[in-house]
Amino acid sequence: METAFADYLDDFTRRDWEHLDPKAVTDPVRVAIVGLGWFAREWALPGIARSAFTEATVVTDVDADAVEAVAAEHDVTGVTPAEFRAGAVVDEYDAVYVATPNATHLEYVAAAAEQGKAVLCEKPLEATLDRSRRLVAACRDAGVPLMAGYRMQTDPAVRRLRDLLEAGVAGDVIHVHATMSQTMLGELGSDHDQWRLDSELSGGCALMDLGVYPLNTIRFVLGADPVRVSGRTRTNHEAFADVDEHATYRLEFPGGVDALCSVSQNAQHASRLEVTGTDARLILDPAFYEREDRGFAVVRDGTRVDVDFDQVHQIEEEFAYFGHQLLAEEPFHPNGTHALADVRTLAAIYESAETGRPIALTDDAE
Amino acid sequence: METAFADYLDDFTRRDWEHLDPKAVTDPVRVAIVGLGWFAREWALPGIARSAFTEATVVTDVDADAVEAVAAEHDVTGVTPAEFRAGAVVDEYDAVYVATPNATHLEYVAAAAEQGKAVLCEKPLEATLDRSRRLVAACRDAGVPLMAGYRMQTDPAVRRLRDLLEAGVAGDVIHVHATMSQTMLGELGSDHDQWRLDSELSGGCALMDLGVYPLNTIRFVLGADPVRVSGRTRTNHEAFADVDEHATYRLEFPGGVDALCSVSQNAQHASRLEVTGTDARLILDPAFYEREDRGFAVVRDGTRVDVDFDQVHQIEEEFAYFGHQLLAEEPFHPNGTHALADVRTLAAIYESAETGRPIALTDDAE
Repeated sequence: METAFADYLDDFTRRDWEHLDPKAVTDPVRVAIVGLGWFAREWALPGIARSAFTEATVVTDVDADAVEAVAAEHDVTGVTPAEFRAGAVVDEYDAVYVATPNATHLEYVAAAAEQGKAVLCEKPLEATLDRSRRLVAACRDAGVPLMAGYRMQTDPAVRRLRDLLEAGVAGDVIHVHATMSQTMLGELGSDHDQWRLDSELSGGCALMDLGVYPLNTIRFVLGADPVRVSGRTRTNHEAFADVDEHATYRLEFPGGVDALCSVSQNAQHASRLEVTGTDARLILDPAFYEREDRGFAVVRDGTRVDVDFDQVHQIEEEFAYFGHQLLAEEPFHPNGTHALADVRTLAAIYESAETGRPIALTDDAE
Repeated sequence: METAFADYLDDFTRRDWEHLDPKAVTDPVRVAIVGLGWFAREWALPGIARSAFTEATVVTDVDADAVEAVAAEHDVTGVTPAEFRAGAVVDEYDAVYVATPNATHLEYVAAAAEQGKAVLCEKPLEATLDRSRRLVAACRDAGVPLMAGYRMQTDPAVRRLRDLLEAGVAGDVIHVHATMSQTMLGELGSDHDQWRLDSELSGGCALMDLGVYPLNTIRFVLGADPVRVSGRTRTNHEAFADVDEHATYRLEFPGGVDALCSVSQNAQHASRLEVTGTDARLILDPAFYEREDRGFAVVRDGTRVDVDFDQVHQIEEEFAYFGHQLLAEEPFHPNGTHALADVRTLAAIYESAETGRPIALTDDAE
């Protein structure tokens, strides 16, 4: 193990997907940002700016004040959503990043697709499985590339964990635990971001907003999709009367590997992914939030190795990958089909929570 | 929180159940040990000797060589199982510790009960629910006190965790994760202890031998019993052809709290209990093994407090409690009824694993 382990830890934060020289980029991908919530302003805008492969050129939001403020601060073009959809400044961007409430992704993605623009859409793709399918179809029919915003997939700690699993360092994976929680009402104080409490806009709360992280990250590191799921949701606080405040779920992977996951929008901050195999345990803790440093540990036969590495800007990595793949004319790993599997799985977990029974996931073509 | 927290951490390893002065004990409870497997030899004998409230006086086992060796080394009386059951040295012990394979607990406990001796029986109580009920009935009918060997319940770290939960330091409990695994074939090398691979003798393996720890410890710290369970078991390695090698299970507690648990007899060592509440997370890691130091942490609002405390000898604590309660003529918390709930729950998890459905637990009188 030692040699393989050293190999994989060497140059821990490398971009294994990068072959274009970031210093040689003269025309980065120009990105229009649709939706100026907390995450777009605090994380996406800086991430796009830091990435050599992208630059922000256009912003829009239903909140005209936010558009004006961001346009002035970042020296970009601000337009109304109607102007954006009508293609008022269509020559000023090559790609569109959609970070609006879930149930409004489709309209903006469809508009971008009609304009022939590449799309980076936040996850989950939409508020329902049907709308998610239509979103993917819109991009496919227009022939534009679609990436889903799974920032964990371009996080080097996650990629190294996947590398180590692929290299067999953990042996056979036996089971996985993951937990992700926050005090949403406190941490995301702005009303602007509380659309997650509205089931029409969000499609759900704890599972849709947080549950997708453990789900997608486990799919990514195991390189497999769940075949059966079960779950439970519950709500205590009146603010969450319309949606799920807490959820637990079990993902059954091929070969019998179970992943046990919990998420909450109203619990003490937790952020942990733990893969236990026959030969080692791999632990990310903290794991899931952009606003915390990632921790990475390998435990084997009583020895725990905590890997100390330079933390990356997770959203810079995500946009760098997005821009890089577009400039290199190469596909995205988290594409529409990949992202649809999460929406289908989340829908099945909600169905299990309602019926009290496990739900089998069939590998139907989308 | 700070005041309450300081109070509970002060004198962390105190025995809150102890009111007899251990230095004043002149006649400790004399214990006959039935079953001389690895745990009895390496942990129970030293634990009994260290405890001021107990002393070992008699040993028996089907392995005559083991009896001879232990009797000589510890200067105690060695007898055959037949002699023990016949009461050959009945005047030499006040209480009986039963640490034989699960399916043989009943015969020895019944013999001890007929002899009017107090009983400390290893958990799970027996290999089946029916035999466990008969075991409890035998003690009840004979009027002898019965304690089940839940060493976690007298571990100070576990008791402080329960204290903090009771004091509301974590706020409302939202969910719990627990994992416990070992490489049984490697760590417990002796054939003497591999009866766990025989379903007739053990009643099951990963769930019966390991699963009972997270289950009982969570029941203890939450002060509640599960109302519904689901679970899955699986076996990869041929040595476990007759039993469950790995298992995952979910315990649903009143109020909707879910505990997500995993156990394995053939995975990298893991031992962790994590309670996430609205106001804090409480973490025991390592949590479950007698052969490792316990770790105790409280995480709240980004601050993690790792409590450094003098490690106790977990089995000394267990036997001290057993002896103390007998000398004080006070009841055991982990009594027969308490222990039966675990056997019933484990049977329900096995049933769920077979049927693929959650199983409701009714609070039937035993």
